[in-house]
Amino acid sequence: MIQTPYLLFLGDAPDQLAAKVAQGIKDWRPDNAVGQFRMPGCLADAGLKDMTLAEAKAAGAKTLVIGVANRGGVISDAWKAVLVEALQQGFDIASGLHNLLRDENELMAAARVNGRTLFDVRIPSVAYPIANGKKRTGKRCLAVGTDCSVGKMYTGLAMDAEMQKRGMKSTFRPTGQTGILITGGGVPLDAVIADFMAGAVEYLTPDNDPDHWDHIEGQGSLFHVSYSGVTMALIHGGQPDALVLAHEPTRTHMRGLPEYDLPSLEALRDTVLPLARVANPACQVVGISVNTQHMNEQEALEYLQQVEDRMGLPTVDTFRQGAGRLVDALAGL
Amino acid sequence: MIQTPYLLFLGDAPDQLAAKVAQGIKDWRPDNAVGQFRMPGCLADAGLKDMTLAEAKAAGAKTLVIGVANRGGVISDAWKAVLVEALQQGFDIASGLHNLLRDENELMAAARVNGRTLFDVRIPSVAYPIANGKKRTGKRCLAVGTDCSVGKMYTGLAMDAEMQKRGMKSTFRPTGQTGILITGGGVPLDAVIADFMAGAVEYLTPDNDPDHWDHIEGQGSLFHVSYSGVTMALIHGGQPDALVLAHEPTRTHMRGLPEYDLPSLEALRDTVLPLARVANPACQVVGISVNTQHMNEQEALEYLQQVEDRMGLPTVDTFRQGAGRLVDALAGL
Repeated sequence: MIQTPYLLFLGDAPDQLAAKVAQGIKDWRPDNAVGQFRMPGCLADAGLKDMTLAEAKAAGAKTLVIGVANRGGVISDAWKAVLVEALQQGFDIASGLHNLLRDENELMAAARVNGRTLFDVRIPSVAYPIANGKKRTGKRCLAVGTDCSVGKMYTGLAMDAEMQKRGMKSTFRPTGQTGILITGGGVPLDAVIADFMAGAVEYLTPDNDPDHWDHIEGQGSLFHVSYSGVTMALIHGGQPDALVLAHEPTRTHMRGLPEYDLPSLEALRDTVLPLARVANPACQVVGISVNTQHMNEQEALEYLQQVEDRMGLPTVDTFRQGAGRLVDALAGL
Repeated sequence: MIQTPYLLFLGDAPDQLAAKVAQGIKDWRPDNAVGQFRMPGCLADAGLKDMTLAEAKAAGAKTLVIGVANRGGVISDAWKAVLVEALQQGFDIASGLHNLLRDENELMAAARVNGRTLFDVRIPSVAYPIANGKKRTGKRCLAVGTDCSVGKMYTGLAMDAEMQKRGMKSTFRPTGQTGILITGGGVPLDAVIADFMAGAVEYLTPDNDPDHWDHIEGQGSLFHVSYSGVTMALIHGGQPDALVLAHEPTRTHMRGLPEYDLPSLEALRDTVLPLARVANPACQVVGISVNTQHMNEQEALEYLQQVEDRMGLPTVDTFRQGAGRLVDALAGL
């Protein structure tokens, strides 16, 4: 586990979009960050207090989290100077960058000298077991998408937040680097060795109280030929009690695959449910989460109603409407 | 690619079963081996000529292949003495053992000094791409099982052998260490990083002549919760034109999962076909391959006929009957 609270490093982010990780922490775990660190030229703002390393340290920050993508995939000298200084001041550093902190000699040396830890959250740090398929106690919910990047993480975070608000027992279980940085722990599933994928999901979602819900972050799609194996491992390793179908209605083809059409929500439901029931015969599809960000409010509401009528399941945009109706749909499972 | 021909190292194999790799080479690629090397106490026999290292070298052998499992997962000193001697005499060494040749300092040193290569075929040696899902030329056949270890590799090898016999264009494409050692190349799919599984299968089965068939070695099962993600990647990365259902009728539960029943062949067909058609809308289930080794001849033939009547598909045990009818079933695809 990465130690919280964080100082969020925004570096020289060229725009707000580049600071997706920082935004996620701000939105979902604001208590995890004491402030933000911006370098000259930074055009992103996570809406947190700007702090120097020393100020953040004094405010209790334990880990500097790289909350921004780096330009061209290179950790620049300007960044490195700040990161080395942070290690010297006693911060750990956590990063989801493609290029690894551990591959930078200066950072490794500074971490060693100062007894600090570098967390490259894209890389598994655990030897996960092979899945044993044994029924676990507690409840699990998984969002499965018609495509990649349709709002599965957001759905899980929103359902978890709603349950917390209601005083229910609930944990968000990240399976990708953004989620791991937001919460401080998880499994970087797309970087796990094939044989251990389902076992990693079992490890992530262990036995729990009978009335506790894990909200497992979904990945990929059964209909996305590049990543469907990862999705399959989530469905079988997660042995979900509840599935939420996730969809983005304005997508014209599968992400990155111009030759592939999106499946219908019906096709997704009919494909995923029998597969999920291999691991958990009681599994149900409980609702639909639609990302309507590319529609105006009226289009969005009409579309959601239309899908709800057609599918006979509560259908919401969790960003516009919250996850209350999806959480309601878990009652009785 | 591992250089052929091989000398098969049987070491001090405690019984014939331990020499599964050697047996596979003998059965399917006899021209790949000039002889076998047995140590005192060896109780296995691949039916090849016993040779010293020097004799094998003189007969043209390029690679010593470890064709036996090691006791207790340790490469013993007695083995090491032979392996070092082989490197000194100019052999490469190839192994599918869990513990790696490259982790043995003496072997690494001897390989370096003598300019030889150690092939640990469980470990990928290629940076596979992410799958792009683009339609490839040529034809592909994949065996998918109701369970693990039901004869998928054997089915693919038998179909490839039958096509070769008929003068058809055909290649067996290994995805596990036994198949890789038998043929000299392939992808150790269960050891590939999750994100690259489907891309590894695309890499393994590239564009080919329109009348060429790849027989892709299957892995796992969509119904085996430990490994279903690997199977899924084969189905989408392989974009098969033809599927063969593989089954072992005496299995009482899923391999290694006592709580899990096997699916029916109907359930397998109905689950796999829509998923396969995501990547290849023309995909067909063409036949059924049943491993009847635990039945007597009469039971076996009755069972095969029963399944054939029920499923309406050619149903054979490729060990008892050859793969002729399965190859016939590919005509017209």
